[in-house]
Amino acid sequence: MALIQIKKPYLLFVGDTTEPRIAKTAFGLRDWARDECIGQWRLSAEAVDLGLRDLSPSEAVAAGACTLVVGIAPPGGRIPPHWRATFVEALNAGLDLAAGMHERLGAINELSELAERLGRMIHDVRHFDGALPVGSGRRRPGLRLLTVGTDCALGKKYTALAIAKLMRDDGLDADFRATGQTGILISGGGISVDAVVADFISGAAEMLSPENEPRHWDIIEGQGSLFHPAYAGVTLGLLHGSQPDALVLCHDPSRTEIYGFPHVPIVAPSEALGVYLQAARLTNPQVRFVGVSLNTVTMTEADAQRVLAETAADTGLPCVDPMRTGVDAIVAMLRQFSE
Amino acid sequence: MALIQIKKPYLLFVGDTTEPRIAKTAFGLRDWARDECIGQWRLSAEAVDLGLRDLSPSEAVAAGACTLVVGIAPPGGRIPPHWRATFVEALNAGLDLAAGMHERLGAINELSELAERLGRMIHDVRHFDGALPVGSGRRRPGLRLLTVGTDCALGKKYTALAIAKLMRDDGLDADFRATGQTGILISGGGISVDAVVADFISGAAEMLSPENEPRHWDIIEGQGSLFHPAYAGVTLGLLHGSQPDALVLCHDPSRTEIYGFPHVPIVAPSEALGVYLQAARLTNPQVRFVGVSLNTVTMTEADAQRVLAETAADTGLPCVDPMRTGVDAIVAMLRQFSE
Repeated sequence: MALIQIKKPYLLFVGDTTEPRIAKTAFGLRDWARDECIGQWRLSAEAVDLGLRDLSPSEAVAAGACTLVVGIAPPGGRIPPHWRATFVEALNAGLDLAAGMHERLGAINELSELAERLGRMIHDVRHFDGALPVGSGRRRPGLRLLTVGTDCALGKKYTALAIAKLMRDDGLDADFRATGQTGILISGGGISVDAVVADFISGAAEMLSPENEPRHWDIIEGQGSLFHPAYAGVTLGLLHGSQPDALVLCHDPSRTEIYGFPHVPIVAPSEALGVYLQAARLTNPQVRFVGVSLNTVTMTEADAQRVLAETAADTGLPCVDPMRTGVDAIVAMLRQFSE
Repeated sequence: MALIQIKKPYLLFVGDTTEPRIAKTAFGLRDWARDECIGQWRLSAEAVDLGLRDLSPSEAVAAGACTLVVGIAPPGGRIPPHWRATFVEALNAGLDLAAGMHERLGAINELSELAERLGRMIHDVRHFDGALPVGSGRRRPGLRLLTVGTDCALGKKYTALAIAKLMRDDGLDADFRATGQTGILISGGGISVDAVVADFISGAAEMLSPENEPRHWDIIEGQGSLFHPAYAGVTLGLLHGSQPDALVLCHDPSRTEIYGFPHVPIVAPSEALGVYLQAARLTNPQVRFVGVSLNTVTMTEADAQRVLAETAADTGLPCVDPMRTGVDAIVAMLRQFSE
């Protein structure tokens, strides 16, 4: 098993970032892995405050932390030179490093050499260097749910996290399976499927959600969209490799076109369902949809309730907004699989 | 433009291979780029004979050769150590190197350092290290044909080569666009789309077949199959990025299951057409099929003619076997696009 495995709990590195938007990953970790976040490390008093204890690396190690997680996207995508000394301090204090940036921490010789000498790990979760199999398409035991969408960036990770959390809270046997960098940092493992070599997309997805107990659920974070002109290949390989029993369609009713692609209209949820089912049946003929997850964050409560009801009528499926209604209606559908 | 560009003409390296099957690439080059193959270089008298002149690297350079192409897959996938001296000799004689092996020639320090000192190129065409854009999905001028299939390895490259050759022979403006290693070596350029990072599949396809004159055809070599559990992601990204006006479906009527995947049945051509069209319409709503290319190599003439007629009736499309009937019926369809 060559998947990334990050040791928890975490110390979250915020640096000197004052812009909450740039610290999105840190807020995601705080929200979804709060019990695993021992504190925050800020380089200035003006830096974004996650509401966690301020700890230095050595204080965090004393409190049990295992890994310093870079929870910010550095401006311009490059790691500011003055951060390096802070990462050196973290390694020396006893922490592994984890980051989801394009620029790799592991490519900074000073850090990789020090980590090797000290026996620490550096996890650049946006990248994947391990060996992967090609997909086999063979049926495997265990139950799997995949979130899919009409576009990118509309709640596939959030929906999967919410479903996995509610299932575990309800005593069901479920694991969240991360396919992107924030999800990997939140859950401490996974694989960035869009970063693997194209031939191995479905093989990576098979490795991410391997055979399991018959009533165990893997709740897999979807990526991209079959309707996205740049990323549909990733989506299809993930769909085939995940071999899902259950699909949840994620959709943002306020969008009329693919985000950043104004020449590509968004399809209606009712149209998307059939296209996903047809593709998914290649590796699991029994696949079915168990719900639609709408992102209604920009809407009034009345508008949101109206569009939730309309979409439920159009699709014949439970229709939720995880942030507004919770995902109970979807989890109720999932209980039927093990009955 | 970061695509691979290999300088022609070639000297074909056969090494000491005595097994014609292992020299498949060399035979493909001889058949499809004969005018560009100045000679063959064999390390023993028993080695496979391509029917070309036996030339040493220095003789080949004197005759005009620019690149030594490794036309064989080394047994076990590794480059035999005694070949290295021969590659050194070729670089010293004035040749670039090109190969489509998993093991990279460029990863052998002795070769990469010598090539840099001498100003020679080493092309490992199975790999791609250049920067790629993500796909844009924006319509671009020029006409494009993509070969697609019900499985891998049933004639997509051969069909595209045959169509491009006949079009050029007929005075039409057409280029073959290679997406795999043998095609790249044959045409001297292209990109192995299955070797790029998953996020960039359709971006690579867009770069491979860029905007062109309104009546110019790019004839693009397909990869994989939408019905293949391991490689469908590559196929879909290539389909979206190629933005084809015309599709040709390649099919082997003697197969009942995906090659190497006995648990995955082959779909009927008539069923495959709709699935490909639906996916292709995302980036080109006007896309249509212009023919079916059958691989009937294992059949008698009578059986082949019967299945060609049946498939034509089932699909309503011109149905050819490039090796048996030629591809005139498909090229006749393509003429309609520019009328």
